[in-house]
Order: sequence, then C-alpha cells, then structure tokens
Amino acid sequence: MKAFVTGCAGFIGSTLTDRLLANGDAVVGIDNFSTGQRRFLADASQRTRFSLIEGDLLDTGRLTEAMRGCDAVFHLAANADVRFGTENPRRDLEQNTIATYNVLEAMRVNGIQRIAFSSTGAVYGDAVVIPTPEDAPFPIQTSFYGASKLAGEGLIAAYCEGFGFRSCIFRFASILGERYTHGHVFDFYRQLKADSMHLRVLGDGKQRKSYLYVQDCIDAILLAMDRNESKVNIFNLGVDAYCKVDDSIGWICESLGLKPQIEHTGGDRGWVGDSPFIYLDISKIRALGWSPKFGIRESVIKTVEYLRQNEWVFHQRK
Amino acid sequence: MKAFVTGCAGFIGSTLTDRLLANGDAVVGIDNFSTGQRRFLADASQRTRFSLIEGDLLDTGRLTEAMRGCDAVFHLAANADVRFGTENPRRDLEQNTIATYNVLEAMRVNGIQRIAFSSTGAVYGDAVVIPTPEDAPFPIQTSFYGASKLAGEGLIAAYCEGFGFRSCIFRFASILGERYTHGHVFDFYRQLKADSMHLRVLGDGKQRKSYLYVQDCIDAILLAMDRNESKVNIFNLGVDAYCKVDDSIGWICESLGLKPQIEHTGGDRGWVGDSPFIYLDISKIRALGWSPKFGIRESVIKTVEYLRQNEWVFHQRK
Repeated sequence: MKAFVTGCAGFIGSTLTDRLLANGDAVVGIDNFSTGQRRFLADASQRTRFSLIEGDLLDTGRLTEAMRGCDAVFHLAANADVRFGTENPRRDLEQNTIATYNVLEAMRVNGIQRIAFSSTGAVYGDAVVIPTPEDAPFPIQTSFYGASKLAGEGLIAAYCEGFGFRSCIFRFASILGERYTHGHVFDFYRQLKADSMHLRVLGDGKQRKSYLYVQDCIDAILLAMDRNESKVNIFNLGVDAYCKVDDSIGWICESLGLKPQIEHTGGDRGWVGDSPFIYLDISKIRALGWSPKFGIRESVIKTVEYLRQNEWVFHQRK
Repeated sequence: MKAFVTGCAGFIGSTLTDRLLANGDAVVGIDNFSTGQRRFLADASQRTRFSLIEGDLLDTGRLTEAMRGCDAVFHLAANADVRFGTENPRRDLEQNTIATYNVLEAMRVNGIQRIAFSSTGAVYGDAVVIPTPEDAPFPIQTSFYGASKLAGEGLIAAYCEGFGFRSCIFRFASILGERYTHGHVFDFYRQLKADSMHLRVLGDGKQRKSYLYVQDCIDAILLAMDRNESKVNIFNLGVDAYCKVDDSIGWICESLGLKPQIEHTGGDRGWVGDSPFIYLDISKIRALGWSPKFGIRESVIKTVEYLRQNEWVFHQRK
C-alpha cells in the first residue's frame, strides 16, 4: 500500500508513519510543521519508501498533486488543542473542517477512496450516557474543537454516500506516549521543571478523563482500516477505565520523585469547552479483536519517561 | 426588537421578515439574491422599519457592519437544495458552514448573542428511530447539505458555550406554502406545465416525507425564540404525519385537474443523499404550546395555488 499521511510529523502521525514503513508500506507524508517536529521523522527519512511534502492542507493545488498515486489516506493533521478554541475559533474551522474538505476533494480528484480520520471523544460534548457508545444520543457541542471535528466527520460520511468512499472515523480519548507534545502531562511536566515545589491545576482536579497509549491507538487504526466493511465505520478508541486529573498528577509526581504543593483553580471544568467526564465505550473496536495493551497509569508514566529523555520538545513548541 | 435576517429575500426569510415587521419589530435584512427574489420584499420595502443590505455572507466586512445595532439574528440564508450536493460540495461548505461561522463572528464582534438557525431534518441521515426525536442516536450523514447544516449547528453550540450566546436551532421538515421556489411541488408543477400528460418522478414514489406550512413554521420560530431558556435549544419542526411522494403527486394533479402518466425512475431514493423516510418527532416544540394549523395535504394544495398564481417564479430561477 502507498499511504498518504497528513500531519506526518505530529505525535500520532509520525508514529503511524513509522509503523506503516516498518510494515513494508510506502508513505507520502505531508506536514506544515506548525506543531510537527522534524526529529520525529528522523527514522522515516532514512527510508526510500518515505517521501515528505512540506505543505499546508489549505494549499489545495499542492495537496492534490502530493496525493497522486496513493491508495489510502490517513488524515491526522489538525489543530489538536481543544483548549484555545475561544481565542481563535477560525483556526479550528480552517485547520480541521476546511482542511478535511480539501483532503476529501483531493482524494476525489485522484480517485482515492479509503480514508482514516482522527476524530475525538470531544464530539460527545457533555455526554449523557457514560461510558459513551458511538451511537449515543445526538450530542450538543461544547467546544470549537469538537464542533470542527464533527463537521469533518459529516463531510467524510457525505463523501462516502456521494462518491463511494470508505472511511474509518476514530473518536479518540486523549492519547499518551512517546512524542507526546501537548496536553496535561506536558503542561504539568513543564511547570514542575520550572518550579518543582508548586503545581497549578486548571479546574478542581476531579475532572475524569480516559487515556490511550499511542501504540495501542495505531494498532486499532491499522486493524480497523484492514477490516472495515461498511461505508462509514466509526470507532471509539480508549481504554475501559478513567482517572481523575489528581490521580494523574499523583503518577507524574511519583514518577519524577516530587511532592509539589498543588493549587487547584477550582470549578468542574479546566477551561471553556472542557468536559468534566470523558469515558468512551470501546466495545465496538474490541469486537474486531483489538484490546489496549497498556493502562492509564502505565501510559502516563511512559509519557513522563519520554519527556524526561526528550526535554528538547519543550523548547520547540511555539 | 431590531432583528437581523439573513436570506431575507428567500422563501422562509421573506415570510419571516414580513411577520416581524407586522409585529412591530425593525428588520435589517441581507441577501445575495442568488435564489432570493426582490418581489418577495415588495411589502417589506414599503416599511421604514425595514432596511435591505445586498451582500454575501462570505463578505465578512460588509456582514459585520450590516449587523451593527441589531438585537437578534435569524440566520436563514443557505444553499437549501439537498439534491445537488455531489455536483458542488464546495457550495454547501461555503454557503452553509463557512457562512454560519461568519454570521457568528459578526455577532460576537457586535455583541449580539441571540440566534435562530434553520437547520434540517436531513441531519438525521437515514434515521434509525422514526418519528425521530431531537436526541435520536448520533446519526451518520448521508448528504452534503445535512453535513453542512450539522457543522453549522456545532459552531452555534460552541459559540453558546464559549461566548454566552443563546440559540434556537430548528430542524425543519420540508417547508411548503406561498413563495415556495424549490422542491418536489415546484419540480412537478414545472414538468406538468411543459407536458400535462407525463410526469417523471425520481425514485419509486414510495419515499415517505413530512411537510410543514411556512406560516406554521414562522409561528414556531417566533414562539421558541421568545421562550428559549437554555443555551442551546434544538427543535424539530414538522407535523405529526408523513405522506408518500405518490400521495403528494395525487394532490398536485387533483388540484390542477390533470391525470398524467407517471413514470418512476425507480429505487428507494430520488437522488444521492435522499432519505427514503423522514418523519420528525415534534413533541418538544408542541410542549411550548405550538401546534401546526395545516396538514400536509392542505400545504401541498396551498403551494400549488401559489404557483398557479405566480408562474413568474419559474422564469426567475437560475
């Protein structure tokens, strides 16, 4: 297979790229390096089966040309920060919704019909059924990020119905592991690096979240793409567990050997659009034979270990 | 109230504009006249409380300026044709999704926080629960039109959560009545005008659909906007009935005194993205005290009567 990976220099995109190459596939990757890291492509770049296009998904001409001759698209490029939606709503619209439209149009022009898409559990808003299955009651969006990903899902489904595409749409829990470069473990680690005695936590620390290890995530994506049978295949990806933010802080501090004083800013949400409880029902992807190899605590600790060995990531971020 | 009405020269927009003016409100209307009709604004234009901006919602500067000083927005402008999505997917993205984003941004800049939005029952795709309630299982989109409206809903909800907006989102059945200028009654009337002996029907004629009379629709919109209490208020708008396409054809022909030979093109869908069965549960809007005054048959006949007296509409359409 010749795969086209958008966001190939990102956390999940680069991990997927490495796995595809290891499996013997060819990969054409595209990234605008807004948050992607060249170092994540160090191994991939050694392979003759890998080619890198430096470009933005809003540049439709370049995108369409880059995709030529590929068999399937893994669309992982996105503004992945749920937190700053109100500061820049246009970014989610452009980078997530319009970019997804551009990817689909480029596929249509090139006659490519298989797509994997990184959506998010945030599309469930404040879920009323927990653990939340894929066919939960029609949700009301609470974040620009969730809304922009929901719009992407809708576009993909319309292309499947209208143009015979086949898709796997993955609604991710928060992903952790090597190359992790944003999110709560990143933020807490950075704070503790600056001041190991104090940690400021958005919200009351009781928000309940679910996390998945990145290699487990890639396993699920590849399995589902191999097996997908209907036009639109939607899968939650997570683990059968959740933890409180304070639990996660405990593991991070334990892992670093620190005992900081913890200051909670209060409130049941860390920021506008934050969901106090995210916990996805993963029985649908489990039914394909997949199960996560790592639990939340292990994933948090692996992430801390990665950051400890790769403190350069804190200096790269814009 | 000073209302801002997008799509003010359209079928529903102009009817709403007239009602708001009759109720004593002031109206600033905007329309790009891509499908809107100047004749629909003949009455409104006589009123000093009405002002018309000729402009496109993609022109953000003009939009933002036009909205200044208004109290509430009725966002009805859209590409309202569900049928031609695959011919021009970008039109739905631009006219429905991006235009809605622009409207919301213009509201934010102008400090306007109340919005009514014309969404569609098409967002339920091929509904699994019928009659379909607002909290039906998370649907899979089947049309570009539905996907673009779903994206609009998501953006509105995110603005409500992020910026304190309050919204009423209306998921319409098909609307019929005076100033109706597209849809199956329009198409069939036009065919019969050209050849009263033959009628070609897309699909097998057994598609089941639900229709609402435009003045009933306006009643519901105004009532809900008056009563809305939560941030995001979603209402299906329709009637407690459905009919088959062939039933509707019977009423149209009866009304015109014609007995054409009917040719069905076959298949359970009239076009890509057509839903074979649309029937909305309207108990939520009913609970506010609203009920439709007209049934489907009466609405079809009123529409035929309107078209008979206004054949000019057939010559205006692009």
